[in-house]
Amino acid sequence: MTLLFRDVRAITLAGPPGPRRGTALGDIDIRERADVLIEGDRISRIDSDIRPPAGAMVIEGRGRVLLPGFIDCHTHCCWAGDRLDEWDRKRAGASYLEILASGGGIMSTVRAVRRSSEADLSRTLLDRLAVMAGGGTTTVEVKSGYGLSTEHELKMLRAIRAASTSWPGTVVPTALLGHAIDSETPNFVERVIYETLPAVSDAFPAITVDAYCEKGAWSVDETVRLFEQARAARHPIRVHADQFTSLGMTVRAIALGATSVDHLEATTDNDLLALAASATYGVALPVCGFHLDGRYARGRRFVDLGGAICIATNCNPGSAPSSSMPLAIALAVRHMGLTPQEAIAATTVNPAALLGMNDRGTIETGKRADLILLRHRDERSLAYEVGGNPVDTVVIGGRVVSAAHSSA
Amino acid sequence: MTLLFRDVRAITLAGPPGPRRGTALGDIDIRERADVLIEGDRISRIDSDIRPPAGAMVIEGRGRVLLPGFIDCHTHCCWAGDRLDEWDRKRAGASYLEILASGGGIMSTVRAVRRSSEADLSRTLLDRLAVMAGGGTTTVEVKSGYGLSTEHELKMLRAIRAASTSWPGTVVPTALLGHAIDSETPNFVERVIYETLPAVSDAFPAITVDAYCEKGAWSVDETVRLFEQARAARHPIRVHADQFTSLGMTVRAIALGATSVDHLEATTDNDLLALAASATYGVALPVCGFHLDGRYARGRRFVDLGGAICIATNCNPGSAPSSSMPLAIALAVRHMGLTPQEAIAATTVNPAALLGMNDRGTIETGKRADLILLRHRDERSLAYEVGGNPVDTVVIGGRVVSAAHSSA
Repeated sequence: MTLLFRDVRAITLAGPPGPRRGTALGDIDIRERADVLIEGDRISRIDSDIRPPAGAMVIEGRGRVLLPGFIDCHTHCCWAGDRLDEWDRKRAGASYLEILASGGGIMSTVRAVRRSSEADLSRTLLDRLAVMAGGGTTTVEVKSGYGLSTEHELKMLRAIRAASTSWPGTVVPTALLGHAIDSETPNFVERVIYETLPAVSDAFPAITVDAYCEKGAWSVDETVRLFEQARAARHPIRVHADQFTSLGMTVRAIALGATSVDHLEATTDNDLLALAASATYGVALPVCGFHLDGRYARGRRFVDLGGAICIATNCNPGSAPSSSMPLAIALAVRHMGLTPQEAIAATTVNPAALLGMNDRGTIETGKRADLILLRHRDERSLAYEVGGNPVDTVVIGGRVVSAAHSSA
Repeated sequence: MTLLFRDVRAITLAGPPGPRRGTALGDIDIRERADVLIEGDRISRIDSDIRPPAGAMVIEGRGRVLLPGFIDCHTHCCWAGDRLDEWDRKRAGASYLEILASGGGIMSTVRAVRRSSEADLSRTLLDRLAVMAGGGTTTVEVKSGYGLSTEHELKMLRAIRAASTSWPGTVVPTALLGHAIDSETPNFVERVIYETLPAVSDAFPAITVDAYCEKGAWSVDETVRLFEQARAARHPIRVHADQFTSLGMTVRAIALGATSVDHLEATTDNDLLALAASATYGVALPVCGFHLDGRYARGRRFVDLGGAICIATNCNPGSAPSSSMPLAIALAVRHMGLTPQEAIAATTVNPAALLGMNDRGTIETGKRADLILLRHRDERSLAYEVGGNPVDTVVIGGRVVSAAHSSA
């Protein structure tokens, strides 16, 4: 299969491997009026005036923007049930504690996931992955974490793996073993560390292990104990930290060699400085600020300090009801002080590096042909215009998987 | 052409004609597991288990939500140029006055529109209308107002009329004669009232006349003078009032029999009460709050006072960079205190009544077949999930004009 994008404004983001930091983040490579040739699942040539090979499918760009597919490096998009009744109660004034007491919050999703079969979880995940692909996401990290028991965490991870084989994009599973504390399970933390973690290690060796460190969830000490065992079993680690409360987890995560610290809404300036100076990525999740409380990570400060930043949707049924990377970009530019160009790098080349995938995240010869054609001719419109889907055509692994069709 | 929607959750909004007020706004009629038959451009039957007539196209709803097409009753979506450089400067800290002084703001769009041909204006408007249709908008009001001279206002109105003939949906043009003050034209207000208005009356009899009443734009006295002349020439009137400053225009507009007062972010409680007690609609534009300054109309209060509310995108290149009615709904529920059900009524049946179109805005036998099938099975998801396009299939006048196609 040969495919030619003709006359596109190619946001190539070409450059050295690894994350972009500081001024390099926004100084992205752009080729105007370029042609991009795709052979098989790879980008084979970027030039002007490429003659279409015989039998090639030609997509006329007419100056529209071509981007690497979005890489959404933090989602919880495998779940069951919904939280719409809970939202009704919240809007009617119920407090967080009242909702928890009436069985709402994360435990309602946990109950729905426990009741669901692996096949049902996989099917609903696939529905969401199809929506994500249509919105330009071609690689997505998906966490477990709504099982909160060995049986159900393994079921979630198998469901995620099953969905990944049916989706043309790439799914990166993460074992979110420390998502919440199940108060109905005695010695819950011990069981996660000494029963669930070893079982996950057996079935999913080298999978990344994650935890949500926050007041009312996993404490710093519990998180560190989980992570020390995970590191001993050769698992990479990531952590949710500083969403509401600065507990000191960020510097502990850096010391443990964490791949990333995610959230960062409440991170102190000292911790932000330590994170920026480290090899650990900072992942900002601006949809939470939109949906919950208007609080956002200080992205501008983190970039200026030289940190390696990524932006992700955090797609989940409770705190981030969106799988739209364009929305995450629009929010990051409005509320975190990033430029549109920085936000594009933080959703393509940087998350590719975070996930250790050197074959994607830029438009360069030899890279995987995960590409999206916007309806816009200026990449800043991706951040400026908001709502709706700005993506006209999605190519994954050299194949067109979604294209805007309208007789209007 | 015969079309059958099978097994949908039909949000019919059936009920007496006219706007819904107070508790009636959110108390919307819903038919679960309904079939909806469309013959020609009309809804001919709503029932359970309708046998598909021979040759009918069948769309399987599988329990998904069917809504009347959105009616976006306030947009400025006919324009030329863009304001992306200006946005760069704003984000870099330039003040409103600095941007105005350097030729930015509304006058930059006016210059671009004046330079554009009628055909170019019509073509770019059609591109935007196609995006709107894909997002579920089937009827849209489009204002002039970037011409600021007789010649260019007439050009805009002709461009809007030309685009409307090529779009399957319905375009309602409005003559926004009092959008700004062109300081380079001597006696600008007099010329609008005594030269442009009569010319518009000749070419577009009975078109609605609109004005933007605000500090730095049209004063209350100027707006009233324009409106008195417009009323004398049998034009309905609408007004932009109280966006930043409460100037007293709202009660003047009510007294003049205005169809609507739009914006309302800064309306006093007394004026809101007067508006709610009147026959004049209140139109809230929440995308401005999202994009500009976090200020929103007090929608909950207005509904509780018994006002006839509509929600619109305000789609324009400067203050509301979105044509997404789902986004406007998501913002109205989060920031104006409406329920999802109220927001749905405020984007369908109420704007149909505002525009005087009794043939649409609900799903009832005999109504025009402007219908949208969501990917959701619960209409609250329309407000809960945000970003991206929740609309799977769009039918306008009985014809499928947009459907989600994806091999993913």
